[in-house]
Amino acid sequence: MTAAKLPTNAFYAQSGGVTAVINTSACGVIETARRHPDRIGKIFAGRNGIIGALAEDLIDTSLESAADVARLRHTPGGAFGSCRYKLKGFDQHRAQYERLIEVFRAHDIGYFFYNGGNDSMDTAWKVSQLSEKLGYPLVCVGIPKTVDNDLPHTDSCPGFGSVAKYVATSIREAGYDVASMARTSTKIFVMEVMGRHAGWITAACGLASEAEGEPPHILLLPEVPFDEARFLARVHECVQRYDYCTIAVSEGLHDAQGNFLSDMGTQDAFGHAQLGGVGQIVAQLIKDRLGYKYHWALADYLQRSARHIASKTDLDQAYALGRAAVELALAGRNAVMPGVVRLADALYRWEVGVADLKEVANVERKMPRDFISDDGFHITDKCRAYLTPLIEGEDYPPYRNGLPDYVRLKNISVPKKLGEFAV
Amino acid sequence: MTAAKLPTNAFYAQSGGVTAVINTSACGVIETARRHPDRIGKIFAGRNGIIGALAEDLIDTSLESAADVARLRHTPGGAFGSCRYKLKGFDQHRAQYERLIEVFRAHDIGYFFYNGGNDSMDTAWKVSQLSEKLGYPLVCVGIPKTVDNDLPHTDSCPGFGSVAKYVATSIREAGYDVASMARTSTKIFVMEVMGRHAGWITAACGLASEAEGEPPHILLLPEVPFDEARFLARVHECVQRYDYCTIAVSEGLHDAQGNFLSDMGTQDAFGHAQLGGVGQIVAQLIKDRLGYKYHWALADYLQRSARHIASKTDLDQAYALGRAAVELALAGRNAVMPGVVRLADALYRWEVGVADLKEVANVERKMPRDFISDDGFHITDKCRAYLTPLIEGEDYPPYRNGLPDYVRLKNISVPKKLGEFAV
Repeated sequence: MTAAKLPTNAFYAQSGGVTAVINTSACGVIETARRHPDRIGKIFAGRNGIIGALAEDLIDTSLESAADVARLRHTPGGAFGSCRYKLKGFDQHRAQYERLIEVFRAHDIGYFFYNGGNDSMDTAWKVSQLSEKLGYPLVCVGIPKTVDNDLPHTDSCPGFGSVAKYVATSIREAGYDVASMARTSTKIFVMEVMGRHAGWITAACGLASEAEGEPPHILLLPEVPFDEARFLARVHECVQRYDYCTIAVSEGLHDAQGNFLSDMGTQDAFGHAQLGGVGQIVAQLIKDRLGYKYHWALADYLQRSARHIASKTDLDQAYALGRAAVELALAGRNAVMPGVVRLADALYRWEVGVADLKEVANVERKMPRDFISDDGFHITDKCRAYLTPLIEGEDYPPYRNGLPDYVRLKNISVPKKLGEFAV
Repeated sequence: MTAAKLPTNAFYAQSGGVTAVINTSACGVIETARRHPDRIGKIFAGRNGIIGALAEDLIDTSLESAADVARLRHTPGGAFGSCRYKLKGFDQHRAQYERLIEVFRAHDIGYFFYNGGNDSMDTAWKVSQLSEKLGYPLVCVGIPKTVDNDLPHTDSCPGFGSVAKYVATSIREAGYDVASMARTSTKIFVMEVMGRHAGWITAACGLASEAEGEPPHILLLPEVPFDEARFLARVHECVQRYDYCTIAVSEGLHDAQGNFLSDMGTQDAFGHAQLGGVGQIVAQLIKDRLGYKYHWALADYLQRSARHIASKTDLDQAYALGRAAVELALAGRNAVMPGVVRLADALYRWEVGVADLKEVANVERKMPRDFISDDGFHITDKCRAYLTPLIEGEDYPPYRNGLPDYVRLKNISVPKKLGEFAV
């Protein structure tokens, strides 16, 4: 009589820039997998993404309590560490893939879940080819995540809705502030937001303007080449009419020649090229040409980690896609990614769909032209209809001592069985 | 038989930088005054602070519904407009004071409520001398407000607790983010906060660090002269130990000679001196000397208008002090300011006290030295005991379409009775 085969273990990792809800997907993966002890043994998390697999640096999530796993649902950042690291092709870096198989085999890993954006779905797709190309039996499922909202084959990307809610709320609030100060002080407020290639986050700021004259008055999208004269004329007109002007600008704003405004030869105190800061560049331009006093804000990481004002829709989708990934894996669906399928805008309804990783990898979804107003400075009603459901609903974290009470996992390492590998 | 004298009207105005809760005090004033129709007639708000009084630009708040007035409690910014405008002394500008009396007399104003910080309490004190110096019967009460928390004779200043909650939450959240990214990307995160002269807001960031190693790791307070070598050594040590380092820096950081770091001769793209941006200066210094990749954020107006994460304590105090101002006025107490008196730290209890405006005007309350750790880079337990109650409690605004639903008042002008006056 032979011993019954143990259930196969799973590998889960987080990749790329983290979000307010990537841990919510992790929670969906772990809680769902734990409900199938007959099929899935332990879930090992890669410490710092795929690097954790290559370096055999695995975290044993089975040592985390159910309560702590549940707290992942409301904890921002990447609980297991993330990475910016893209696997090369099979032919260029066969050794890396052989190492992955070596690690997976050593730890009896049969399921691979990779939670990330465009680059990460490319990595997931490459890993999904292992069984076919190198004969190692593995079911690989991608889980979408990106604040940039630029993955194809999903109506929305977990992480985006919460950033959208944060930036729209923030610019609305700052708008109330600057409107109060305009008579004797600040007339211009500029907020710089993320999204180097696609204007989704900048567009989301536009949701705060629900009626004529409400801030933000101007959006500077990366899809619309910056035209200084037209922009200044619009700012001037806005100040004439409302006494102030509130502007959201994408970090990726560029001119007609494709030059980033953030890269206009500015130097800092130490003589280095100054990166970022397009918000200040635009604000200072207004000051120089029109003479208006300004304030500017750079939300940076605050926007993508603001779990305290996460979107309920976003959280629900992040969890559902983590859960769906496990269910797809259990159904033997290799090389796929669950995504959101929108069923209706107005009384928003959605369901989980499935896309092929090959179709997703390295494809960027741009914002449709008809989401941008004719003058290029705002969003259309069509865009508003798309965006609004994604920021709807509140889901507050618990508080302790006046602050959100987020979890820090124990993150205990799985004992290594193999030798070193240079990542 | 003569007609019975109508009740006297009241004047209320907002002054200086606005906050997430200055409208909460306005709500306290208006709701309380409305409960005394036998004593107080209409409440006229100054459009843009004291300028509204000088220009006879008054808003008739009696035309706002009770529901809209109640919504002021959860609306950031200054609903009637604020101003940065300080009355000069009687001798220098007697015409201004005579104009005030002319306007007050024309509109039967017998109560004057001024809601602001240090400069504003100076203005309120000057106005409170009108009855004595120029024979016009007026009861003048100041209402404290400042995110800088630097008014004396009140344990805390409405506006501060909410900024404190926002910045501590934000740097905690960003800390979770950068901790995830540190392995292959960003190791340094710097957040610049307000407080040019006093480090209260920077100190509040320190609340997010509740255990060894938790961010923020370093606070750069305006009370502690910047020492580059010591700072860089601390950053290096922090990265060695935790793999990342999170820093909160005051806009007012300066060196031992008193030079602001934000004024170190930096120039922008247009050749102008670059103001602000000390966050980036500090971050770039780390990059240059230690080579670590950084991100930085500039919270700016977002911090002081973030009503979505206001402190319940702060809101309660803002409302209570508005209400107390009216009660003091009805008791005939001229030239005073209600303030917060702390009764206990641990099971926090407070009550409303009364200070003389003369004692408050132009006095800045500094942060005690024993609130700062010996090495100058963090706060002490004593500081934590003081700050924690001020950020406790949540009081969320209502949401509509996924965004906080703030009120815009009708702000209908009172018909003018007088000629022009150049402000």
